[in-house]
Amino acid sequence: MYYGGIDVGGTKTICAVAGDDGKIIERVQFLTDKIAPELFFDGCCKRLEELCKAAGCTFSDLQGIGITLPGMVNENNLLLHAPFLEWHNTDVVGIVQERTGVKNIRCECDVNACGVAEAKRSKYKNFLWVTVSTGIGSAVMIDGKVFRGAHSVSGEVGHNKVEYEHPLTCTCGQLGCAEIQASGAALTRLVLAKCKEDPDYDRLYEEKGLKRDGSGCSALAKEGEERSLALFAKVGDYLGKAIAYAVNILDPECVYIGGGMSRSFDLLYPHIRARLKSDVVSFSSDTPVLATTLGYDASIIGAIALVM
Amino acid sequence: MYYGGIDVGGTKTICAVAGDDGKIIERVQFLTDKIAPELFFDGCCKRLEELCKAAGCTFSDLQGIGITLPGMVNENNLLLHAPFLEWHNTDVVGIVQERTGVKNIRCECDVNACGVAEAKRSKYKNFLWVTVSTGIGSAVMIDGKVFRGAHSVSGEVGHNKVEYEHPLTCTCGQLGCAEIQASGAALTRLVLAKCKEDPDYDRLYEEKGLKRDGSGCSALAKEGEERSLALFAKVGDYLGKAIAYAVNILDPECVYIGGGMSRSFDLLYPHIRARLKSDVVSFSSDTPVLATTLGYDASIIGAIALVM
Repeated sequence: MYYGGIDVGGTKTICAVAGDDGKIIERVQFLTDKIAPELFFDGCCKRLEELCKAAGCTFSDLQGIGITLPGMVNENNLLLHAPFLEWHNTDVVGIVQERTGVKNIRCECDVNACGVAEAKRSKYKNFLWVTVSTGIGSAVMIDGKVFRGAHSVSGEVGHNKVEYEHPLTCTCGQLGCAEIQASGAALTRLVLAKCKEDPDYDRLYEEKGLKRDGSGCSALAKEGEERSLALFAKVGDYLGKAIAYAVNILDPECVYIGGGMSRSFDLLYPHIRARLKSDVVSFSSDTPVLATTLGYDASIIGAIALVM
Repeated sequence: MYYGGIDVGGTKTICAVAGDDGKIIERVQFLTDKIAPELFFDGCCKRLEELCKAAGCTFSDLQGIGITLPGMVNENNLLLHAPFLEWHNTDVVGIVQERTGVKNIRCECDVNACGVAEAKRSKYKNFLWVTVSTGIGSAVMIDGKVFRGAHSVSGEVGHNKVEYEHPLTCTCGQLGCAEIQASGAALTRLVLAKCKEDPDYDRLYEEKGLKRDGSGCSALAKEGEERSLALFAKVGDYLGKAIAYAVNILDPECVYIGGGMSRSFDLLYPHIRARLKSDVVSFSSDTPVLATTLGYDASIIGAIALVM
């Protein structure tokens, strides 16, 4: 048995074919084109066909194709809104069905798909999944399923407010959102500001050949460099505030952290933990906060999990 | 057909007998004694027996007895913790069953029971119920049922933080909780402080024979008195922050406000609405915020709804 997956990200897209156990056999990665969805998925389906060939199967052998999208998907598999790609009210399932003939096709918001994949592996079925990457997205999982909410916008952890006194303006237009104060992009902004203010700090990046972004800062912080640790403390504290709000509302069994920033989980964790201690009611302040088990490929694994 | 209800509040307790339609036929109200639960419910059962007699029935005619408690109740009807009454791990159902012989007995945290009662009447089945009274409690309703959470402490709207810069210390020991900044008790505290600071304001209460508390302030605000309106604006804004966090996480169909402060709903509403506009993602920022339809008796109606 084989399964197909298409993970459309804001920057890159991954197509993959997986076997019985959901493990990826063949995959290809390419930049996401900002073109009409019909054209875009035409390209995806051609790539998927090649991957099938390489895996020794055809479209008719696929038990299903799961698709993750960088936007809002409703309970009827309709893509409502993908702001970066400017796709609106798009029947992605219909497009891919027409080109592949595969009947079992589902699409889902990328973050929700990660929640689905994690729920299939985890002993926990009621949890919050938080992707901390360029932005911050979140999935509310109840009894192993995505809890979507009345407008398909539950889990907006990234747009809860964590800074009222000196807030930055978020891309959503509101002030002090976790997404603008605590995301990977926020950390990069802090790194650049610190480099500008402190030439000695800037030189460190130069000397070590590090990027002046979250990954560079993480490399320095892991060596114990204090200014870098302080930047992680700031971002981790904001992230902790946003997660604490959600834990007080949902009382989940655990919180999973995924996305690029989860590679710096150990640097963020103590600050998230401290906020849960100070901001969450005592009965649930010890709620486990865990790094995802899905790794960097969470989203394409999530795509495949949708149809398994 | 008859139903019994016992609503144990921190201050007062109501016992009632209701008919087929859940409407209360007989009721009695008395102060809650801080005594052992066995003794306390002994008294409740005696009163309930008298109410049955007045209604023309006996215990054996009761289809069930619903009990609401001011504390945490788990999914097995066990009272885990009622801090004010100092009752812990108490089998309230067992006690009342022994004294009445009624088989269908359920107990629930008072706020959750209000959610259950509202769900039975409302077209909405996925909502947040918020009691704003001396404290702030909340029930998360999903598909018409209480969503309890992993430690039976979901819906802690009252302990999310709404003031980081100049926070007050909450009774829970944490800083800046909605409960200490935005409850009925918080409004009374603001009234007393304002009366102390402004003798002219204090005189207003004296002249009109108003209590220096939330109800007195509400009476003045309803006449357009500006200092009173400003106090409602402050409390309403804090309440709005706390509700906004929950709306971003749950994306509910609506939010119901109950408890004593719901009698001043019109004074609070514009400030709650403004916070939802500024703090909730655009797709759900118009989520309806409604005064409960259950009125002041919400909790005893909730008790009866548990067994209907």
